[in-house]
Amino acid sequence: MKIIIAPDSFKESMTASEAAQAIYAGFKPIFPTATYELIPLADGGEGFVDTILNTVPGKIYTYQVMGPRKQSVTAKLAVIEAGKIALLETAAASGLQLCNGIKDPLTATSYGTGELLKHALDLGVEHIILGLGGSATNDGGAGLLQALGAKFYDRSHYELPLGGIHLQALEKIDISALDPRLQTTKITLASDVASPFIGPNGASVVFGPQKGASPNAVLQLEQALTNFSQVIKATCGQDIATTPGAGAAGGIGGALLAFTNATLTSGVELAIALTDLEQKATAADILLTGEGSLDSQTKLGKTPLGVLRAVRSVSPDCTVIGLAGKVEAVAELYQLGFDAVFSCTPGVINLERALRSGSKHLTQTANEIAHLLQKFV
Amino acid sequence: MKIIIAPDSFKESMTASEAAQAIYAGFKPIFPTATYELIPLADGGEGFVDTILNTVPGKIYTYQVMGPRKQSVTAKLAVIEAGKIALLETAAASGLQLCNGIKDPLTATSYGTGELLKHALDLGVEHIILGLGGSATNDGGAGLLQALGAKFYDRSHYELPLGGIHLQALEKIDISALDPRLQTTKITLASDVASPFIGPNGASVVFGPQKGASPNAVLQLEQALTNFSQVIKATCGQDIATTPGAGAAGGIGGALLAFTNATLTSGVELAIALTDLEQKATAADILLTGEGSLDSQTKLGKTPLGVLRAVRSVSPDCTVIGLAGKVEAVAELYQLGFDAVFSCTPGVINLERALRSGSKHLTQTANEIAHLLQKFV
Repeated sequence: MKIIIAPDSFKESMTASEAAQAIYAGFKPIFPTATYELIPLADGGEGFVDTILNTVPGKIYTYQVMGPRKQSVTAKLAVIEAGKIALLETAAASGLQLCNGIKDPLTATSYGTGELLKHALDLGVEHIILGLGGSATNDGGAGLLQALGAKFYDRSHYELPLGGIHLQALEKIDISALDPRLQTTKITLASDVASPFIGPNGASVVFGPQKGASPNAVLQLEQALTNFSQVIKATCGQDIATTPGAGAAGGIGGALLAFTNATLTSGVELAIALTDLEQKATAADILLTGEGSLDSQTKLGKTPLGVLRAVRSVSPDCTVIGLAGKVEAVAELYQLGFDAVFSCTPGVINLERALRSGSKHLTQTANEIAHLLQKFV
Repeated sequence: MKIIIAPDSFKESMTASEAAQAIYAGFKPIFPTATYELIPLADGGEGFVDTILNTVPGKIYTYQVMGPRKQSVTAKLAVIEAGKIALLETAAASGLQLCNGIKDPLTATSYGTGELLKHALDLGVEHIILGLGGSATNDGGAGLLQALGAKFYDRSHYELPLGGIHLQALEKIDISALDPRLQTTKITLASDVASPFIGPNGASVVFGPQKGASPNAVLQLEQALTNFSQVIKATCGQDIATTPGAGAAGGIGGALLAFTNATLTSGVELAIALTDLEQKATAADILLTGEGSLDSQTKLGKTPLGVLRAVRSVSPDCTVIGLAGKVEAVAELYQLGFDAVFSCTPGVINLERALRSGSKHLTQTANEIAHLLQKFV
């Protein structure tokens, strides 16, 4: 019997890798002789690089760069495929987890992600894959462009300080000194966020609040990015205001789409491709996937659904079991192709304990399922 | 395929019958052509009579009797087997659910249960089955005996008032007027409580607190029942102080064991026998059982374990699936013979919502299990 264990992270409880181990710990005692493939996955957010490195050999480089609060942080990138491809994630240099709880999306900057990109270019790679997600920033990628040589001026021709709020005063962008390698290097943006740069589904309105923006701050950031998008259009002719994905990572998506040849691709699909999931899942009997919540959002291209489709494409009869802390809208999940979906919550417990004991509960639930299945397989 | 659905009640959330219906609602859409046997079960506590009547034809009689707080209450008994057997439960006339939240185990009386017994005798039955459990009382069954003709006196030869606390002053019991039919009628006490009359595992210490007894009240009730047990011994020669089961229903078990030919039997096993569970479970493929909590207490003779054993005795290969609001000690449950145990809690929710939505969640979990099993059976 061949069993594929390919979960996403269970946010605030387990990384994808820990979740895969927890499921494995529940199944292995019941089916000790089965063949297991553990393929933890993630979309472009925090952990994107690590999850790829779990299954793909690569070399890690670390750098001191500017964090979202302009502090110095240590950030890493990975180089895979014999030096040809660099793997980066915006969370590494500009992530919310670097803010120590002090969130200020008005002044947070993506400058460090620009520095990291520059380091990747210096390594001479042919292809940069940047995972978008988990950022603390809402600066439309302005800081990133500044780190790579662009100059941002207000109407008095003063250079703008770092931080999204200052883009309200942006008058002109000088890209004459922008790193020319950005035009000659293949850049892939990995993201499963479809938000445009601005508007009611845009970066500021949808993601600003979880980065700490008050309603008034959201309004100011929306004005700032609106002005930024108009200046971008005047500078390079690209209108990114309504481009899906331009709002990913506080607008970093939009900046790179406008000023480079970057293309946007699904983080899940990229991770599936890089980890050779399909090849590993041939002749699979059981797929165990999941994430923190399986619900009516799952159909919108989240990791478990991508995994389900990839595995079914090579093993159509594979039994697909979803696991999550919270399970809702089960009928919809069946329609998406799940054979079963189980919550790993063992009773009435509070959120803090549920998150803290996630691994134990996930192992237990996987064990219960395996214990049931052994009667039948 | 034959599917047996035989849960206990999910306390404070669903009766056994509601739980059976909820599980059925989850399985039926997936396996529409299977044969289903719904056999809700209960030990001797609240709902004992109703659960038997779910599967056994009987006639119901209702009476006005004295409630635990000496108020008038309507209580029922059932007569089955063509008038030969009366089914009663202590919860009907003396139950905690009759107290409207005002718990006073010091003065609560089992008098009404004695009246109900008298009505059963008046119906001319050959056999009385009394479910012990769910009582609000801690009077050692003194009230019950008084309703049936016994006289309780203090040292000044005054008759004692009703209520356990007054047994501290008990000097003498006159049983000359005790209903003689109690000696000639077969009486079976249905209970799965092994507590003795007094002591650290006795009625007052173990069950007093859940009936509203403060630590000081527990101490007083323990003294009262200790004195009562000594007077019982002096009256009829029976020492019930340490008899297992004598502490059931606030000591009603002890009073009946001392002054009648009553025998104690497992409520679960009695319910299993009365509902013909074993005969109905021949050639069963799947058993679904459960109750509010499946945990390390389950091995102590609770309903799901009794059901498991009964079904396995006639269908050894039957797949046994346990369902509960709370699941713990799963490894122990496997050892008891469960093939799988699942919590029906779908995520982090509070107790109030878990209890209120129990039926919906139980249906969902049963449906998830059925959805998984249909791949294999």
